[in-house]
Amino acid sequence: TRARLGCVRVAMAKSKFEYVRDFEPDDTCLPNCWVVVRLDGRNFHRFAEQHGFKKPNDDRALQLMNRCAQTVMQELKDIAIAYGQSDEYSFIFKKRSNWFKRRSSKFMTHVVSQFASSYVFYWKDYFEDQPLLYPPGFDGRVVLYPSDQNLKDYLSWRQADCHINNLYNTVFWSLVQRSGLTPVQAQTRLQGTLAGEKNEILFSEFNINYNNEPLMYRKGTVLVWQKVNKVIKKKIKIPEETEEKEVEVTRIKMTAVPLHCDIIGDQFWDQYPEILAEDS
Amino acid sequence: TRARLGCVRVAMAKSKFEYVRDFEPDDTCLPNCWVVVRLDGRNFHRFAEQHGFKKPNDDRALQLMNRCAQTVMQELKDIAIAYGQSDEYSFIFKKRSNWFKRRSSKFMTHVVSQFASSYVFYWKDYFEDQPLLYPPGFDGRVVLYPSDQNLKDYLSWRQADCHINNLYNTVFWSLVQRSGLTPVQAQTRLQGTLAGEKNEILFSEFNINYNNEPLMYRKGTVLVWQKVNKVIKKKIKIPEETEEKEVEVTRIKMTAVPLHCDIIGDQFWDQYPEILAEDS
Amino acid sequence: TRARLGCVRVAMAKSKFEYVRDFEPDDTCLPNCWVVVRLDGRNFHRFAEQHGFKKPNDDRALQLMNRCAQTVMQELKDIAIAYGQSDEYSFIFKKRSNWFKRRSSKFMTHVVSQFASSYVFYWKDYFEDQPLLYPPGFDGRVVLYPSDQNLKDYLSWRQADCHINNLYNTVFWSLVQRSGLTPVQAQTRLQGTLAGEKNEILFSEFNINYNNEPLMYRKGTVLVWQKVNKVIKKKIKIPEETEEKEVEVTRIKMTAVPLHCDIIGDQFWDQYPEILAEDS
Amino acid sequence: TRARLGCVRVAMAKSKFEYVRDFEPDDTCLPNCWVVVRLDGRNFHRFAEQHGFKKPNDDRALQLMNRCAQTVMQELKDIAIAYGQSDEYSFIFKKRSNWFKRRSSKFMTHVVSQFASSYVFYWKDYFEDQPLLYPPGFDGRVVLYPSDQNLKDYLSWRQADCHINNLYNTVFWSLVQRSGLTPVQAQTRLQGTLAGEKNEILFSEFNINYNNEPLMYRKGTVLVWQKVNKVIKKKIKIPEETEEKEVEVTRIKMTAVPLHCDIIGDQFWDQYPEILAEDS
Repeated sequence: TRARLGCVRVAMAKSKFEYVRDFEPDDTCLPNCWVVVRLDGRNFHRFAEQHGFKKPNDDRALQLMNRCAQTVMQELKDIAIAYGQSDEYSFIFKKRSNWFKRRSSKFMTHVVSQFASSYVFYWKDYFEDQPLLYPPGFDGRVVLYPSDQNLKDYLSWRQADCHINNLYNTVFWSLVQRSGLTPVQAQTRLQGTLAGEKNEILFSEFNINYNNEPLMYRKGTVLVWQKVNKVIKKKIKIPEETEEKEVEVTRIKMTAVPLHCDIIGDQFWDQYPEILAEDS
Repeated sequence: TRARLGCVRVAMAKSKFEYVRDFEPDDTCLPNCWVVVRLDGRNFHRFAEQHGFKKPNDDRALQLMNRCAQTVMQELKDIAIAYGQSDEYSFIFKKRSNWFKRRSSKFMTHVVSQFASSYVFYWKDYFEDQPLLYPPGFDGRVVLYPSDQNLKDYLSWRQADCHINNLYNTVFWSLVQRSGLTPVQAQTRLQGTLAGEKNEILFSEFNINYNNEPLMYRKGTVLVWQKVNKVIKKKIKIPEETEEKEVEVTRIKMTAVPLHCDIIGDQFWDQYPEILAEDS
Repeated sequence: TRARLGCVRVAMAKSKFEYVRDFEPDDTCLPNCWVVVRLDGRNFHRFAEQHGFKKPNDDRALQLMNRCAQTVMQELKDIAIAYGQSDEYSFIFKKRSNWFKRRSSKFMTHVVSQFASSYVFYWKDYFEDQPLLYPPGFDGRVVLYPSDQNLKDYLSWRQADCHINNLYNTVFWSLVQRSGLTPVQAQTRLQGTLAGEKNEILFSEFNINYNNEPLMYRKGTVLVWQKVNKVIKKKIKIPEETEEKEVEVTRIKMTAVPLHCDIIGDQFWDQYPEILAEDS
Repeated sequence: TRARLGCVRVAMAKSKFEYVRDFEPDDTCLPNCWVVVRLDGRNFHRFAEQHGFKKPNDDRALQLMNRCAQTVMQELKDIAIAYGQSDEYSFIFKKRSNWFKRRSSKFMTHVVSQFASSYVFYWKDYFEDQPLLYPPGFDGRVVLYPSDQNLKDYLSWRQADCHINNLYNTVFWSLVQRSGLTPVQAQTRLQGTLAGEKNEILFSEFNINYNNEPLMYRKGTVLVWQKVNKVIKKKIKIPEETEEKEVEVTRIKMTAVPLHCDIIGDQFWDQYPEILAEDS
């Protein structure tokens, strides 16, 4: 709306107040570290309640999260990989990224604001019959990881968290929805149980083999860059014809593609060596 | 979507990876300072172009910004005052705020994400005929100001910036839209001109008295807390009647009210002493 | 030893490694805040033991500390006041100081290194018969205080700490040295006692009126700037005489003067308004 | 001097002022990074002048620096290697060090204060005929390096700096001391000269082969941990004798040993793999 660059400012008015700029902190991230921005939905327990999210997993909500994360990856620079589960998403900026001079505040505010606006923008594509009642909030943070192993351990931490929560929630909501327990009763029933015991409850009482549950629920979503063929329409001029003609052309485009696989073991990293590659 | 609190986690799985939490920085803001979060639209020059913003000022865009800022003030805690102009908004958290333990990342990400989601959510209320083409981004930063004078100088700096830009833009776009100059010609014409000369061009060539331009354009928007009467509907039980009856009740509610006034001089601060009050 | 400024460096050698400079953090202190550097002796319990410090207070050790602190105030820039007790000292840099661009690391390392080298340098002036066995270490930290009240409360905190420790130690060592209790017995005896009870033990058992104990022990030492007449020798040329003659001249010099007074109440600050003065 | 641990503090006096502790920043260093503390002499140009340092290199001054650095390595924890030249020294704390919870202020103030007190303490061992005129100051800073390569490049940067400065200074002082040029003339003569030209001046005009200059001047000093045999005296009880007898025993002790070798190439790192070893 304004021509900031073209603006010839009145020097006197500036000199008096502009000292306040010196109070801005330098929040440059240490170079040669992975920059992780993780965001979380604000009060999403209540948000899920009010918007009728299916429990323990709502496909629409999870896919909307993935859609927003894809938008963040495409719109922002230098994101190597992203991982999401439940109402959280982590974005990993490349070690060598110099986007906005590696300012921590730039990384986190660009990520959360793009994610938040996308959440409202794409809502109707996933929640057709459920209007959005109010604009949701997200919080974010920046964490630096010096080594590749630290980064892999960070992602493993989030995926292990996904597994632990999803197993618990799957049993919890089975007990509530199908056995008629109150939430408090279900909680008491599960207190102190190990993973094996929870699997056993699922199998013996609800005939659920946890390992057959959808991968997206059990593993969360990894977004990786892949070459994808895109068919686009293009107008071309045919020699000796007067009018342009519209033709379909296939272009290869780098796209943030969702996967629902294990990222704790080595296999994933062996398969996608470019994510950690030095020159990435 | 998940019952995080009720979750009994598997200790072993956690212990191996959870060391990565120690890499999170402590970004607590120094106590007893005003905490300013300023956000800016990302690439809003292009965004304004693509959404047909009127130049030099688009009332719909400015009012949408104000609406989002009001939402931020109502939804978040401890904001004493906010000031916006063009595609930027500043939110001032109270000196004594201990919201999220004064973590800098919490302040800035909650502000920008709530603002961004509100921008999309309320878009259609202001841009009825203009669909939103893509979800916009915003960046944010946190700056601390130790003294009340520093804070007042910060806000003066932003309002002086508003004045300087708006005066420039008002002349610039008059030259382009009404005198038919190209942008480059207009820029050249204005290069090096003082405020008085710009006022003179406006008056002599376009019969515009700059001081009669709308206050919102010249001063930006201040949001302050005021008691506002709200009429709400309430169901009450009348004695000796079986059914509840709906009645209108007036409630006084603290509301973020937009003003378009000078905040550089003392008058504003004399009129609203509660903004800077120690116990605020 | 080297002519750094005159040095023409080999461009190629620099370019390859010099990127490591970008890893240096910007640790600028927030402007308009009091900058406090507090240092503490490292393992001074053991140091005092090995150098035969008198307990609970050793005048030589306290005066050496004061001497070092004076050196710090004279050698460094912009220190408004200093306060010391036991093996700790706090130095307060002026709000408006721009010494070394307000870099936190510069403030603290200059203070502790100057203090530490002075400690060894002046040792023999205070410990004539006691050789220094090894070079001692000190740790330091920087804390910012936005308001004058915060700063006064900081200094009050340290002086209250001095009082509490000195009262305790005075009773403790009386019980050990004069009543023959073991340290453990003395500690047990004092556990849970209030200030009044400690005063009572001192008075009834040792005939000590605590309020008559030396002020330096009870209040610590404040260093403030005062004009002091210094008699210096100067060689002057007398007209019509061939040789210079040495005369004594009195010069007024700002000097860091030790006081042992209360700094918690208002009186001190009323008496020395220049310490907190805006233009200080 | 005080029994801090045994002290039962008066609760009321504390509660009022102790809030000021919350203003202390958390300056924890990012885990899994090399922590470099570099110190520099303050105004050492003047200090060298006043203490008659030989130019361009004074063996006494360099060896005193090395002695202080050894003291720092022995007294502090977790230093893997140190490198010094001229009036600067760098100390590298291990990646995994958790000394004082990795607080940046602790690292730097302990290093500079121990170095500064050692400088005065050991002065007379190196400057027998030259009394120390005043206690010197040092400044320090902390820089983090995430990868081993970054650390090696940091050390290479300092050694390259040593080379460049020493070559320059060797020629500069030859021109001044032996050819009788003024400092300004010498500087002018050297302006823009490459390394080869400086070598040529040394050889043709002063018959100096720069490569035969002492290694300590050209390469600086590396301190590495090595097992060294120490002969200590010990009193032992001989069976069937009544008195203890003093015998000499050889003990292996880890010692910070000075080397003057190239650390830019791979050879040094191949020879001392334990410095960078993961579990170091």
